Amino acid sequence: MLEELIEKGKKARGAAAFLRTVSSAEKNKVLTGAAGRLEINLDRLLEANHLDIVAAEKNDIKGAFLDRLKLNTGRVKSMADGLRELAALPDPVGEVVSMVKRPNGLMIGKQRVPIGVIGIIYESRPNVTADAFGLCLKTGNATVLRGGKEAIHSNLAILDVLQEALVDRGFPGDAVQVVENTSRESARDMMRMNGYLDLLIPRGGQGLIKTVVENSSVPVIETGVGNCHVFVDNQADQEKAIAIAVNAKTHRPGVCNAAETLLIHTGIAAPFIPAVCKAMAEKGVEIRGDETVCRYWPEAVPATKDDWAKEYLDLILAVRVVGSLDEAVQHISRYGTGHSEAIVTENYSKAQAFLAKVDAAAVYVNASTRFTDGYEFGFGAEIGISTQKLHARGPLGLKELTSTKYIIYGNGQIRE
Amino acid sequence: MLEELIEKGKKARGAAAFLRTVSSAEKNKVLTGAAGRLEINLDRLLEANHLDIVAAEKNDIKGAFLDRLKLNTGRVKSMADGLRELAALPDPVGEVVSMVKRPNGLMIGKQRVPIGVIGIIYESRPNVTADAFGLCLKTGNATVLRGGKEAIHSNLAILDVLQEALVDRGFPGDAVQVVENTSRESARDMMRMNGYLDLLIPRGGQGLIKTVVENSSVPVIETGVGNCHVFVDNQADQEKAIAIAVNAKTHRPGVCNAAETLLIHTGIAAPFIPAVCKAMAEKGVEIRGDETVCRYWPEAVPATKDDWAKEYLDLILAVRVVGSLDEAVQHISRYGTGHSEAIVTENYSKAQAFLAKVDAAAVYVNASTRFTDGYEFGFGAEIGISTQKLHARGPLGLKELTSTKYIIYGNGQIRE
Repeated sequence: MLEELIEKGKKARGAAAFLRTVSSAEKNKVLTGAAGRLEINLDRLLEANHLDIVAAEKNDIKGAFLDRLKLNTGRVKSMADGLRELAALPDPVGEVVSMVKRPNGLMIGKQRVPIGVIGIIYESRPNVTADAFGLCLKTGNATVLRGGKEAIHSNLAILDVLQEALVDRGFPGDAVQVVENTSRESARDMMRMNGYLDLLIPRGGQGLIKTVVENSSVPVIETGVGNCHVFVDNQADQEKAIAIAVNAKTHRPGVCNAAETLLIHTGIAAPFIPAVCKAMAEKGVEIRGDETVCRYWPEAVPATKDDWAKEYLDLILAVRVVGSLDEAVQHISRYGTGHSEAIVTENYSKAQAFLAKVDAAAVYVNASTRFTDGYEFGFGAEIGISTQKLHARGPLGLKELTSTKYIIYGNGQIRE
Repeated sequence: MLEELIEKGKKARGAAAFLRTVSSAEKNKVLTGAAGRLEINLDRLLEANHLDIVAAEKNDIKGAFLDRLKLNTGRVKSMADGLRELAALPDPVGEVVSMVKRPNGLMIGKQRVPIGVIGIIYESRPNVTADAFGLCLKTGNATVLRGGKEAIHSNLAILDVLQEALVDRGFPGDAVQVVENTSRESARDMMRMNGYLDLLIPRGGQGLIKTVVENSSVPVIETGVGNCHVFVDNQADQEKAIAIAVNAKTHRPGVCNAAETLLIHTGIAAPFIPAVCKAMAEKGVEIRGDETVCRYWPEAVPATKDDWAKEYLDLILAVRVVGSLDEAVQHISRYGTGHSEAIVTENYSKAQAFLAKVDAAAVYVNASTRFTDGYEFGFGAEIGISTQKLHARGPLGLKELTSTKYIIYGNGQIRE
């Protein structure tokens, strides 16, 4: 393993022991202090970012990728605001979720505690450096950040500012660290940092997430891939159904909780297909339809099997007709990624059956899939949407960045 | 990947879809049915077990290993009783842990659901086959079991009986499966069954657990390794301290929550070391002491550095004198495995400091570490004690074998 990682791992463990016992008030002061310092150091951050941008342009990087890399006054301000918002949220650490008194008199409580050291592997957005630091510090976790090589100057400049804010308040600067070696080797080695890292979170595209899930021996939380469906039942209120489908597809097509496939009950194919396709067309959505859909909406592009599995993240929608609710559930079970799934129906039993049968992080009746989000759920800031079943499923908010321990108050009990 | 595993993985997914929606009453009927069938088929089980025993003896297997492999009337009865006890416990699946009404009218509930398919890799005890099946079926999970090659005849015979009980009640027999290929390859391949397995639990010795943690790309829950400490503060009630230390060491030395090291505050070294060592000696415990301990108790064997890290699982106790609570915490943080740790003290602030500073699944004040156990905590049957920080920490009971999903009731909400 790279020397740098071992060293950072050791320092992070030390910082985690410090963070385990600091108060919420102290952590919040660091967060607001860091917010102020980010704004004060705007020029320094933009200068460092400029080095990254120049290097990227030299390497012929452009378009959306270059845009993600860029910092400006607004983006620095929003990093700072993010930290202030975190300071204002309640701290989950220390909460005793439950406490029981056992027959032998033992008081057994389950208390939320920090996880310890969290590693984050991400791509080119430098704002992740401040966001991830904020979420982890708020929950008492030390962080080892490994961002993309294109953003290294920006990340190190942000790091300096964050560490100054920590030291200001008597915290160890090592509570947040950035891995300077951005080779493939450093990413691979991070995935094997058992004993140093308690959790590794990949933030980025599908490729990055897959690589981390397959290669990490450190526990991973998988976030973000969403092939989401809206199923319109024959007993749906069709007006609601169109509004929900259009919102799920077009409100923000590039995010993981946007709908990618619309399933339509055969019983309403004749009126509903042209109506919904027209509404989609007005929003600039390209339809990829099965045979029936193409018959009712000739402008549709015939769908191939690949379309059912695709996360377009774009103004494209696959549309398929199904014979029943069970057929819809089967389609979702086969092609879905377990993120967000919706049924539109006025039938009570079908609504309940859909909720019970569909295996996903969030299952909706008569609402847009776009609500799967930490703020919309009322949890506040999040680090992503978990699509795995262990530890946390759905929005990964502050609570999900904690572990628990049992605290037991006795008065001399021994086991008979 | 082995064909057998792919096939079993597919069947398990089918069974998991069935199990997702069955009622608790139906699952309980299968459990009690299986209990009865195990008892009725006693002879068949003992015959199959006999084949394993004969083969093991031919391979020169003996002692504790051979004993673990053995079935007899009592052990079959206790497998059956275990299933009946599970049937009597409340079913966590379906519980809505919380439900909030958001400002836009969405009702967002968090509901306990089965995890899906759980793989279990274990060693020679055939009773794990029935126990793991019971815990998983109760929580609506399908199971793929990969036991040790020495127990294959026993495991397949138990499997037959369990599958008969499933089919009896209209359940798919594939809800529980045993991997017939018991080569190293089948264990290795199981660790890569992403997409088929949602969770992999290793049950067995430290070597097995380490191998699975390091090589599995399927999420793992780590159980069982416990290097547990009792710290006796200078302000302890020494009588309580002796009772607790002796209980933690000797009540059942072979289990993971038994104490392995006793830390003694230097302030009470003179009276306490001889007193506690005498009590331990009366129970046949060998003392491995640091210099001070050896001075006060000359019968002690001088401890080496290895002793602090050792999980003896035997009537051996490492004893060390520390200068302060913080030194005790540092020792525990360095050598402990995050399982169960206890302080004995009458000082309020020290008790609270120990609870806050020690990072372990269960932290005790004035009680024996032996209480870290599903039944003692009031949770009922468990599959092990988790020492990791994600998903579940401490006793892995029925609740810990579930995931959650968000169920959302809307009336046409779209995101603005």
